Amino acid sequence: MNVLLVFAHPEPRSLNGALRDVAVAELKTQGHHVRVSDLYAQGWKSQIDRADFPASASDARLKPAAASGEAFAAGTLTDDVKAEQEKLLWADILILQFPLWWYTMPAILKGWVDRVYAYGFAYGVGEHSDRHWGDRFGEGTLAGKRAMLIVTTGGWQEHYAPRGINGPIDDLLFPINHGILYYPGYDVLPPFVAYRVDRLDENGFDLIADRLRERMRTLATTPPIPYRPQNGGDYLIPSLQLRPELVEPDTRGFALHVDGAAARARDNVGMRRFREA
Amino acid sequence: MNVLLVFAHPEPRSLNGALRDVAVAELKTQGHHVRVSDLYAQGWKSQIDRADFPASASDARLKPAAASGEAFAAGTLTDDVKAEQEKLLWADILILQFPLWWYTMPAILKGWVDRVYAYGFAYGVGEHSDRHWGDRFGEGTLAGKRAMLIVTTGGWQEHYAPRGINGPIDDLLFPINHGILYYPGYDVLPPFVAYRVDRLDENGFDLIADRLRERMRTLATTPPIPYRPQNGGDYLIPSLQLRPELVEPDTRGFALHVDGAAARARDNVGMRRFREA
Repeated sequence: MNVLLVFAHPEPRSLNGALRDVAVAELKTQGHHVRVSDLYAQGWKSQIDRADFPASASDARLKPAAASGEAFAAGTLTDDVKAEQEKLLWADILILQFPLWWYTMPAILKGWVDRVYAYGFAYGVGEHSDRHWGDRFGEGTLAGKRAMLIVTTGGWQEHYAPRGINGPIDDLLFPINHGILYYPGYDVLPPFVAYRVDRLDENGFDLIADRLRERMRTLATTPPIPYRPQNGGDYLIPSLQLRPELVEPDTRGFALHVDGAAARARDNVGMRRFREA
Repeated sequence: MNVLLVFAHPEPRSLNGALRDVAVAELKTQGHHVRVSDLYAQGWKSQIDRADFPASASDARLKPAAASGEAFAAGTLTDDVKAEQEKLLWADILILQFPLWWYTMPAILKGWVDRVYAYGFAYGVGEHSDRHWGDRFGEGTLAGKRAMLIVTTGGWQEHYAPRGINGPIDDLLFPINHGILYYPGYDVLPPFVAYRVDRLDENGFDLIADRLRERMRTLATTPPIPYRPQNGGDYLIPSLQLRPELVEPDTRGFALHVDGAAARARDNVGMRRFREA
């Protein structure tokens, strides 16, 4: 398969750089074709602005979504953006790798999303009406492909636990997993998270690297997070509210958008496999 | 009072630009001193990188947190970052204004956080030990000040409701309100959110502008979100888990970090005021 890894750390000699090398080496060992978008090394421009739409009149009022849609349709987006879009279409699997800074991705990676995710490419896809609110959340340009995050944190795993002060890691990553990856169609695999990385000794690194290699070996078989497709019947349209009869006991907030029955079935399969092993 | 508004939209003639002007005018009418950091107009550099630490050796391995701490302590951060830190110390109230892009802030504003929030200034403050995990989440350099968000979305309010497909707006904004504003000490006011702004007519704008003026008039009196202080006794240290005996019925995820009793007391006061009015 074709794998694109988008890497967002300024220092190649960092732990993130080492983990990237581990991931890429294992992917190649598995026979995958790998490309890396090293955003800092590429000198990636982080902010979306007028220069992103060179064909637009320089004195026109800049409406980012409209300008993005026009430039995508006309093929006049900038070359750096077009190159990333081409890589996304090429890749069967997308990996975003970054250190968690202020509870989300670094600015340079957010700028990759803001700029590469053009209107007509990642959003504004499909019919938009009162009966169909676009091809998104499970459908879209990148449907049929898989995506996952590789994330490092300085904080402890406990701090990101269900009752940890930072908030649960799954909730912190939901706007990325659901809002950025599932939105244009990706099946989203559970994230790979390495905690407490600031004081890692060699043994600690080896354990993380082994865990990461295992995830790279199972990219094709790991069951994705069973988010509910927007157009699969679970949501009222156009209010896009989860149907009132879909009640998950003890579930609130982001977790409502995971299909609980599917998640339990998946966990049961996993547990059965575990017991049989 | 002194108010700093950090503005992150590329087009001054946008709805965001108009709302900024409404907010600034009302604040001045109220006698406040107002400064605006217009990130696009300032040509703000979005990504943190080696150039942020001009005093560091150019061939040294870049460790962002360590380099940030050294540069902050030595006074060798770049002038643009120092100017923003000075504004934060000057301001009694901080407002971050931005369009919600991919469920969070634009890259340029995330880069403002990544770069201005230096180690020793916004994090790494106070004793860090197994008994005291820093002055943060309610304490820190910016304690005693207030902060709030002004956010616009293209999507409908229903889509951001408790059962809306995007996830609840309070949860989407939690990593910013709690993780970026409450973290270095701000009291965080409920956000101002304007929904469905892509097809706004004049009447729709006037309604939003009136609502925004009201919020600008009540900055000093609006009760903040009652997040639980890290060092107030609600958390075990160093695991930073919410104490098991603190149980809020029907509460999960991010909402656990709001003091439910305080929130209910605040709502009751609001309701009493409402009934008496």
